[in-house]
Amino acid sequence: LKRAGIIGGGAWGTALAQAAAEAGLETILWAMEPEVATAINSTHENSVFLAGVPLNENITATNEMADLKSCDFILMVCPAQFMRPVAKNLVKAISNGGVDGTPLVICSKGIEKTTGLLMSEVLAETVPNSPVAVLSGPTFAHEVAKGLPAAVTMAAEDLELAKALSLAIGRPAFRPYWTTDVIGAQIGGAIKNVLAIACGIIHGLDYGENARAALITRGLSEMVRFSDLKGGQHDTLMGLCGLGDLMLTCSSTQSRNMSLGSALGQGKTLEEIMAGRKTVAEGYHSAQIVYEIAKQANLDTPIIYAIYQILYEGRNVDESINDILNRPFAAETF
Amino acid sequence: LKRAGIIGGGAWGTALAQAAAEAGLETILWAMEPEVATAINSTHENSVFLAGVPLNENITATNEMADLKSCDFILMVCPAQFMRPVAKNLVKAISNGGVDGTPLVICSKGIEKTTGLLMSEVLAETVPNSPVAVLSGPTFAHEVAKGLPAAVTMAAEDLELAKALSLAIGRPAFRPYWTTDVIGAQIGGAIKNVLAIACGIIHGLDYGENARAALITRGLSEMVRFSDLKGGQHDTLMGLCGLGDLMLTCSSTQSRNMSLGSALGQGKTLEEIMAGRKTVAEGYHSAQIVYEIAKQANLDTPIIYAIYQILYEGRNVDESINDILNRPFAAETF
Repeated sequence: LKRAGIIGGGAWGTALAQAAAEAGLETILWAMEPEVATAINSTHENSVFLAGVPLNENITATNEMADLKSCDFILMVCPAQFMRPVAKNLVKAISNGGVDGTPLVICSKGIEKTTGLLMSEVLAETVPNSPVAVLSGPTFAHEVAKGLPAAVTMAAEDLELAKALSLAIGRPAFRPYWTTDVIGAQIGGAIKNVLAIACGIIHGLDYGENARAALITRGLSEMVRFSDLKGGQHDTLMGLCGLGDLMLTCSSTQSRNMSLGSALGQGKTLEEIMAGRKTVAEGYHSAQIVYEIAKQANLDTPIIYAIYQILYEGRNVDESINDILNRPFAAETF
Repeated sequence: LKRAGIIGGGAWGTALAQAAAEAGLETILWAMEPEVATAINSTHENSVFLAGVPLNENITATNEMADLKSCDFILMVCPAQFMRPVAKNLVKAISNGGVDGTPLVICSKGIEKTTGLLMSEVLAETVPNSPVAVLSGPTFAHEVAKGLPAAVTMAAEDLELAKALSLAIGRPAFRPYWTTDVIGAQIGGAIKNVLAIACGIIHGLDYGENARAALITRGLSEMVRFSDLKGGQHDTLMGLCGLGDLMLTCSSTQSRNMSLGSALGQGKTLEEIMAGRKTVAEGYHSAQIVYEIAKQANLDTPIIYAIYQILYEGRNVDESINDILNRPFAAETF
């Protein structure tokens, strides 16, 4: 595996291009925006989405998906809701001996809202002949781009593929740990933003560090139940893609999801909060589909239910928390 | 279960006495220091170890262990290294129909240094006829004492005992989750301080949030291996007593273990750090016995080994980290 393709010129796509190039791979980054490709090729900086980080000169940017034809594997870093159309375009662009069989590595986090499908399930429908892998973990893009140490989960049903991808993109400052649990590896990224809103609420209410740690731990158990439903394994959720990513997302009070929760905890209404923002936090959107899936399967996921009710049914925050704290005591199982 | 005894008048013992009294239990707190007992009985405040928190008036303090004779269960909150002598004294003090058969709840965290035994193993030797439980989780004492929400693991081999203790001491602001895994429930508390030193080093080196989340996640996998060795279950380590407690301990840069690590990460020598401190962080002590147990069993616990080498063999911090980051890539297993 010598040539890496990256689809998506946002902060994370650019950081992954940097990681691939620093690992010695020839790296082609497809960006939707012409100005991103131009900036990277001319100044070796993504001044639009990752300003201030000098990029490796072995990164070539393009707006033409066909330029990814020669890649040995392609990292899919488009927003989750665009995975289906992007994958279809990719097939068209590089179909002659290209994407059929080229491993695709899912680096986007989320569930397709219209279908409730995980990204691997979307690719199974759109690019059925390509082996699929998942790269996920606790990774702020700018830290990875700067070369600070990070570790991620690399999942593929075919263990040899997971190993080969890990060896290709890994280096001391970017350590992949492999697994065959493709499903479990996607659950953390799909749910963490909803739990980060809950964590923000606890923070906004000044409930303290004990409550925060309890919320994240019990939130992880909701992740595990969700993963059980989809067919993932418990141990995977204990890993970088599960607990690791959840912890990172719940650690930064500046993050959009936590700050949304924090404002709710401080007693602001959703309307008041939205009035001051241009876009809504991702967790707001994912709360709906995550709730629907959990509800339909009758999962024991009280935090997810509470966040849905607060966001979509105007439920009072204090009442929701009261309900959670007053649940009957129970076993610490998953 | 109507009457709770508490052994240990430090911050955590006092906070647990508060929790028990707030749950409606008649609560007797044994403190070694006469001034602690006097202060609690006369002013309803532990001005020595938990100043500023008004205590429930149903807490009675004493310096006489014999006063615990009538208790239905006793929380053992003495320092781990004193569990053996304290338990022996307890037997003597209340032996006539007392401690034999009275459930003892281990609330101390640590491994007996001279033997490598867990607290439950120490009690099995000293008080073989008393059923033993473990209460452990992410709990800063002052938050619990103030009534802020917290959740803990309550473990007992006898599930009915774990349930009964949970119902006795639980309330909405202090939620126990029960399990029968007494061994697994003790591992987190025994190892977390060693990992907190490692987390401090990462912090002192300004390695960023990704590295911190990776360290805690990989640290959890070392906890799991240690637990496997002792006979604990994986899921227990995913819970409040494992991950939850680890996360809390690794979240407070003011904590003694993290600040020790942080100073090491900033390039100070252990001698320089010790010169400015009256007592050493707990993780320094536990690193030795944890290392010895892991080493003897040939466990794959690189973070624990690295911390031991830095603290006890004068190993260079940068070299240790370099070794860890340069390990061969591997499966994300436990």
